Amino acid sequence: MSKSANISMPVIRRLPGYYRTLKVLEEKGIDRISSGKLSELMNSNASQIRQDLNCFGGFGQQGYGYIVSDLKEEIEKIIGIDRTKNAVICGFGNLGKALYHHFDANKYGFELVGLFDSDKQKQGQVVGKLTIQSEKNIVEFCKANNVETAIICVPTKFAECVVDLLYESGVKSYWNFSHFKVSTKYSDVVEENVHLSESLLTLSYLIDN
Amino acid sequence: MSKSANISMPVIRRLPGYYRTLKVLEEKGIDRISSGKLSELMNSNASQIRQDLNCFGGFGQQGYGYIVSDLKEEIEKIIGIDRTKNAVICGFGNLGKALYHHFDANKYGFELVGLFDSDKQKQGQVVGKLTIQSEKNIVEFCKANNVETAIICVPTKFAECVVDLLYESGVKSYWNFSHFKVSTKYSDVVEENVHLSESLLTLSYLIDN
Repeated sequence: MSKSANISMPVIRRLPGYYRTLKVLEEKGIDRISSGKLSELMNSNASQIRQDLNCFGGFGQQGYGYIVSDLKEEIEKIIGIDRTKNAVICGFGNLGKALYHHFDANKYGFELVGLFDSDKQKQGQVVGKLTIQSEKNIVEFCKANNVETAIICVPTKFAECVVDLLYESGVKSYWNFSHFKVSTKYSDVVEENVHLSESLLTLSYLIDN
Repeated sequence: MSKSANISMPVIRRLPGYYRTLKVLEEKGIDRISSGKLSELMNSNASQIRQDLNCFGGFGQQGYGYIVSDLKEEIEKIIGIDRTKNAVICGFGNLGKALYHHFDANKYGFELVGLFDSDKQKQGQVVGKLTIQSEKNIVEFCKANNVETAIICVPTKFAECVVDLLYESGVKSYWNFSHFKVSTKYSDVVEENVHLSESLLTLSYLIDN
């Protein structure tokens, strides 16, 4: 499989949807699927699906469709789920807690190896197989444990301080729930932002318009 | 202020960012701001900002800039934060809990008035000022309490059932954390999806590419 260079962000953002749909199909024991059927399941259109998947090298065969398990495996490789990346959660308030307990990061290629919170009351608490640590340990811990990714769950006003420590430790990828824009300060990182408030405000707008 | 019809989704999605930035400026006691300065703060460019705000009627004055409090108030009205909408959380697992405790929906124009979970162990528990109810109460409760918005925190496989009840109750707007697409089944609703797994998978792709 040969990847085209410069895949556009919209295509990249659709990949997880393909992955999810293919996983469901595989679980249902479906071996083969046409781009037409796949497009129905994904509320997309067949030609977009063919175009998207062509960006990553051709998978399908005309008149035959895609082999579900093969396509799923290829997309797994493209997304990088097949390589586990060590990650830490910074900020163990409700959001950090919810992500830790609710969200199976392992399923998506991330292994949670550390939890940090600046609240002394929380430090030392054992949660699952991890112990909440002081943010003062970030640099040492992340270097020693080859941490690649940080999940930023601290309030925006504390985010820059925490990111400074993480960056110093060599952490170059951020799943960022704060409003501090990591990539503006550090241009060589990758960042994926989740702004819940902006999503809810968008809904508010849509309700009345 | 006159709104242009057919505002594009990218513009709408930028409005919450304007709102947030203006709130910070107001809190800092800044009265007036140019589109240039605003663009720096928002990592945008001045001409886009002027264009965006023009969609909703002109606010600024050339060479003078925008009055922060006026602009904030106008955007508040446009987004609809000035009108409180009753909302319920369906699914009170970690995610539902995190949103309830962590997320100040009131700040964004939503009042949480009900919590629902199908787990009998949870039903009857008092959380803050609300009591967790059985999903069997959804229709009656939502009709009686003029609920406009539902926050869908149940697993995807249960989402359709819950949405059926909500829709029957007249709920027409959905903040949806599941992968069940509400608007595909009910075309007259507004829906804002948050797909955490897809966001993390996108990050995974970006790390290795």
